Amino acid sequence: MDAPPPPRPRARDLGIEVGARPPGPTNAIVDVPGVRVGHVTRWEGDSTRTGVTAVLPGDLVDLWWRPMASGSAVLNGTGELTGALKAAEWGQVETPILLTSTGAVGRGYDAVVDAVFDAVPEAGVDHLLIPMVGECDDSWLDEARLRAVTVADARAAIDSATAEAPALGVVGAGTGMVSFGVKGGIGSASRHVEELDATLGVLLLANHGDLPELTVAGEPYGRRLQADGFVDAWAEPEGSCVVILATDAPLDAHGCRRLARRAGLGLARGGSIAHHGSGEIFTAFSTTVRGERRPSGPTTTRTVVHHRAVDALFAAAVEAVEEAALDALLVSDTVSGFRARTAPGLPHP
Amino acid sequence: MDAPPPPRPRARDLGIEVGARPPGPTNAIVDVPGVRVGHVTRWEGDSTRTGVTAVLPGDLVDLWWRPMASGSAVLNGTGELTGALKAAEWGQVETPILLTSTGAVGRGYDAVVDAVFDAVPEAGVDHLLIPMVGECDDSWLDEARLRAVTVADARAAIDSATAEAPALGVVGAGTGMVSFGVKGGIGSASRHVEELDATLGVLLLANHGDLPELTVAGEPYGRRLQADGFVDAWAEPEGSCVVILATDAPLDAHGCRRLARRAGLGLARGGSIAHHGSGEIFTAFSTTVRGERRPSGPTTTRTVVHHRAVDALFAAAVEAVEEAALDALLVSDTVSGFRARTAPGLPHP
Amino acid sequence: MDAPPPPRPRARDLGIEVGARPPGPTNAIVDVPGVRVGHVTRWEGDSTRTGVTAVLPGDLVDLWWRPMASGSAVLNGTGELTGALKAAEWGQVETPILLTSTGAVGRGYDAVVDAVFDAVPEAGVDHLLIPMVGECDDSWLDEARLRAVTVADARAAIDSATAEAPALGVVGAGTGMVSFGVKGGIGSASRHVEELDATLGVLLLANHGDLPELTVAGEPYGRRLQADGFVDAWAEPEGSCVVILATDAPLDAHGCRRLARRAGLGLARGGSIAHHGSGEIFTAFSTTVRGERRPSGPTTTRTVVHHRAVDALFAAAVEAVEEAALDALLVSDTVSGFRARTAPGLPHP
Amino acid sequence: MDAPPPPRPRARDLGIEVGARPPGPTNAIVDVPGVRVGHVTRWEGDSTRTGVTAVLPGDLVDLWWRPMASGSAVLNGTGELTGALKAAEWGQVETPILLTSTGAVGRGYDAVVDAVFDAVPEAGVDHLLIPMVGECDDSWLDEARLRAVTVADARAAIDSATAEAPALGVVGAGTGMVSFGVKGGIGSASRHVEELDATLGVLLLANHGDLPELTVAGEPYGRRLQADGFVDAWAEPEGSCVVILATDAPLDAHGCRRLARRAGLGLARGGSIAHHGSGEIFTAFSTTVRGERRPSGPTTTRTVVHHRAVDALFAAAVEAVEEAALDALLVSDTVSGFRARTAPGLPHP
Repeated sequence: MDAPPPPRPRARDLGIEVGARPPGPTNAIVDVPGVRVGHVTRWEGDSTRTGVTAVLPGDLVDLWWRPMASGSAVLNGTGELTGALKAAEWGQVETPILLTSTGAVGRGYDAVVDAVFDAVPEAGVDHLLIPMVGECDDSWLDEARLRAVTVADARAAIDSATAEAPALGVVGAGTGMVSFGVKGGIGSASRHVEELDATLGVLLLANHGDLPELTVAGEPYGRRLQADGFVDAWAEPEGSCVVILATDAPLDAHGCRRLARRAGLGLARGGSIAHHGSGEIFTAFSTTVRGERRPSGPTTTRTVVHHRAVDALFAAAVEAVEEAALDALLVSDTVSGFRARTAPGLPHP
Repeated sequence: MDAPPPPRPRARDLGIEVGARPPGPTNAIVDVPGVRVGHVTRWEGDSTRTGVTAVLPGDLVDLWWRPMASGSAVLNGTGELTGALKAAEWGQVETPILLTSTGAVGRGYDAVVDAVFDAVPEAGVDHLLIPMVGECDDSWLDEARLRAVTVADARAAIDSATAEAPALGVVGAGTGMVSFGVKGGIGSASRHVEELDATLGVLLLANHGDLPELTVAGEPYGRRLQADGFVDAWAEPEGSCVVILATDAPLDAHGCRRLARRAGLGLARGGSIAHHGSGEIFTAFSTTVRGERRPSGPTTTRTVVHHRAVDALFAAAVEAVEEAALDALLVSDTVSGFRARTAPGLPHP
Repeated sequence: MDAPPPPRPRARDLGIEVGARPPGPTNAIVDVPGVRVGHVTRWEGDSTRTGVTAVLPGDLVDLWWRPMASGSAVLNGTGELTGALKAAEWGQVETPILLTSTGAVGRGYDAVVDAVFDAVPEAGVDHLLIPMVGECDDSWLDEARLRAVTVADARAAIDSATAEAPALGVVGAGTGMVSFGVKGGIGSASRHVEELDATLGVLLLANHGDLPELTVAGEPYGRRLQADGFVDAWAEPEGSCVVILATDAPLDAHGCRRLARRAGLGLARGGSIAHHGSGEIFTAFSTTVRGERRPSGPTTTRTVVHHRAVDALFAAAVEAVEEAALDALLVSDTVSGFRARTAPGLPHP
Repeated sequence: MDAPPPPRPRARDLGIEVGARPPGPTNAIVDVPGVRVGHVTRWEGDSTRTGVTAVLPGDLVDLWWRPMASGSAVLNGTGELTGALKAAEWGQVETPILLTSTGAVGRGYDAVVDAVFDAVPEAGVDHLLIPMVGECDDSWLDEARLRAVTVADARAAIDSATAEAPALGVVGAGTGMVSFGVKGGIGSASRHVEELDATLGVLLLANHGDLPELTVAGEPYGRRLQADGFVDAWAEPEGSCVVILATDAPLDAHGCRRLARRAGLGLARGGSIAHHGSGEIFTAFSTTVRGERRPSGPTTTRTVVHHRAVDALFAAAVEAVEEAALDALLVSDTVSGFRARTAPGLPHP
């Protein structure tokens, strides 16, 4: 294969609707105002199938000076999300969030430091930053020992991020991922949350699951495929699924943490049992609850979603995550890579 | 209504199969050798609809001297499970586990202390105990201010526990529960885990969920019922779901904690989004990994399930929880109670 | 002994000052406006040495309708604090907080339900409550199998709570406690936090520690006593220390959680290593960050201490906890109890 | 200044003894058999003052195939320790642990991947690795925007690690650190744990604390220095302290997690209040509890320290951490760096 296969149709293109709430215009995380996505894909020869994806919660300068409320959750921790400790303690995200191959996390981290230093002259003088970089292990399709992703690649993903509908599937960090024994990758979805007149968006990197567990809109589709003789890619479900959730509802850090926890429920509906070897790690942010790097006084006043009003966001998150994880499979076509291994595209229902 | 309605058929009686693994002989938590269940139901006049359910991991005396490995998880913490802190720190359960109404937790706690004191003369001399008591809020159907459950009731649930197939639905702690807008209550299920030649059993108290979210074996059954004009019991999903998981696979405390975390995935498949007001709290124990109250030396030797072999237990837990939560609805028939409110039985699919 | 020994002098009476910040008027938790404390002591014959202590964050009715921001932390979890899960999820405390003997936790829970039902006619109709009850194990001095503390005792502690300087040492829940091998019990302290023009108060129940580890204002006083031939009460450090922190600084739930975590640092300075068998469990609340039980809209506006301004509260908490834990020893005189065991009062430095 | 100042005497050289347990031969983490330490120091011109320190729990190949039991704890999370999520989920460490400047974490991560790939041909084929890299922010003394630490530096720290008594103070990751307003850096200590015939060692990177809080062997030494007119380096305590604990006692993952939690108690005794901006993050491992990358069956048998026997390790950890944090100050002499700022060496008591 000389190039990544073009994307196939998404779930809604195939008439599959997940949940009851309406998606936003692009049905992707960029429906949340200010959020941008960039990809760099590394596809070379027969065995380099990897890349990096950047999610920018907002403009780098603005994000540095006025970090956004943020919270994370871990369903199964066999993975990595750098920066999660600080984000939890301060309840804030202040940098782009990258997704990439496990072996490239350090390079992603390095690139975010570069990008923030370039954007913010004050950064690194007295105060350093701790980037958020998540990962999945793509070493089944990618020859990971070649370490194809560079710091420059990660930087290019940040620099190229736009608010347009992002490419999905076999792209960026999703290039070499395998999910439920078929080709996985990048998925995204969004929901309009009428109760709060807000939008919730998710972007995820699907590299998890085992074919017999795959559930499509409630149907045990994986077992059915197996019964029909479909042969999937592998036996050992060692992958992960990292989910980024964004909203413009004014959710504080604790609310973001609770929202992030719901991502696992969406994955469960798609068939995840959160395998021993799976990093099912989730992080959420609110673009409208902002901190101040240099507060003017000892107290601060914030308007946030009341605890009792969060259920609408929770419901939207569960739906959107289920759909995004499904889309990651539907969109991704067959890919061959390292050691002539092939991850087939999921046969469309 | 003069008495609780008799149980209706279970999912498998109706031809609904959840998951792919075979259940044990009773398809209930007592399929795990040594585990016993007891119920006391309080049903009086028009407004007392409550009770208590006891799960005994083993014989009280044996459990005191050789506590079992134990671990818990919280999906949403709007609830209570006494004893969870100590169980987490020591990784052990040493008492019966009770489920009851929120207002009766103290009485359940008191009853467990009594029961252990009676069974174990050494208990309370130098070393006290911290019972495990979980709860759901049944104050929609039960006149909670009457505080019907007594210490004696809780004690009777412990004393009457047997290894027989337990009553399900409108019984014990399940008497006044409402789940997905219909009558909820006690559910149970089990799975044979061939890979480890072991059994996994669950018992849960279903008081959670909102009708539009109800999913039955993958179908959006709640929305379909609503479309058909079915009127459910209430609007505010403030309930909880406490899940107890048992296995005779040799799972250590950390493994039990991880197993408990999977209960939320089973609930998600049935439609839970873990509402703001829901206590989705889970505890798991292994009957074959035992501590010693008076260790003979500074080290101890244990044989436990290897980390990589836990996936079979995880898969079994997700299935069994989904089925038990569904059974809790299917088995429970219509109940009227406090203020002439009525929780209808879920129309059978 | 016919009655509890009268209190001995406190640290400051002995010229021992802990830390640099000034205490409030009573140097106790009641220096935080609105906080009240009540004790009931059970001292009978030769072997009943127990009791219950109530801390009321505010008026029961007001607390029900406008819960206070709350957060907890666990240094070592061999203990119990009921209600901690819900308080963590919602970040609120809505009931009195009781401290008592391990075996009496259920009765304390029951009493809080009674007290709130009596004070608030709407409580228990549709919404139940989850009381906060902490414990330490006093079964070395108290004949715990007699179960002396009743529901009425716990209720009386609540009903008798006042804003006056509370009795310390051998009183209420402190009656039978042993700490660092000498008589422990109730300690309290407060600090004025000039930076925020606020007060921080703590009340704790000291039942933890091992004599050789006892540190008094930096001195290895326990080892010195041992070198001088002092014989302490026991060998096995199985006790606990539960700490309640209160402030009128506007600290949100996350801030309260972080504040609670600092209590362990104060205990460490007094010699705690957080033994395997110790429940070092802490809960903090802010009297000025209030929720609404019936919110008027989907969002709420709050003014809270800015993250960067919390260090002054952290410093005050560490000091106050160190002093309160020391006071618990200094104030408490020798007590004999169950099986003619004697816990000597700590020889004053 | 042309070069880092030579180390000054350690606490014990000055006659200061912390705690009661005897140190090992080097009073450093390398007293635990198999543990090695390497440093690379970057000191250039007037403003590069940084570096990297590597702690190797064991041989890289052996560690890959037989990971060690591991557990972490966070007192205040304003920092980073990559790999902590996976280490927590699997309870294992499988790579060297690096300490470096906040901005260099990505480079440290990258270097560990390189080192393991070079040592283990199977690494990265199907299974990637997640290195452990901790950090403190040295951007007060170091011109962080120059990003002096390279991947090669981090690799050299790994490759040069030896079991000899490590250099302390102004060396490796400690080069640019400031602690309690004076020059901080690398500290280490060890204790013989007679009860288990084992050794406990710690190595830490001290960049935390505020001068008025500094406590030396129980004395409020920082306040005394201030009263004497001593002028410290800065006003804003934004630093961190990362602690690595090692033992050859057979402690399982849960035991390691509990051990790690005790590091905060040692820091507290030296004056830490765990400032808002401090990353007080701890990780512990046991060299004698080993996993298997390719287990031969579904269960595994392990001999581990019994829960009740851990108190001796806890006590040793608290002592050793207090001493190591003090040593980091005593050993480090005055350093000038970025913007002509100077961090004075702590005047010796």
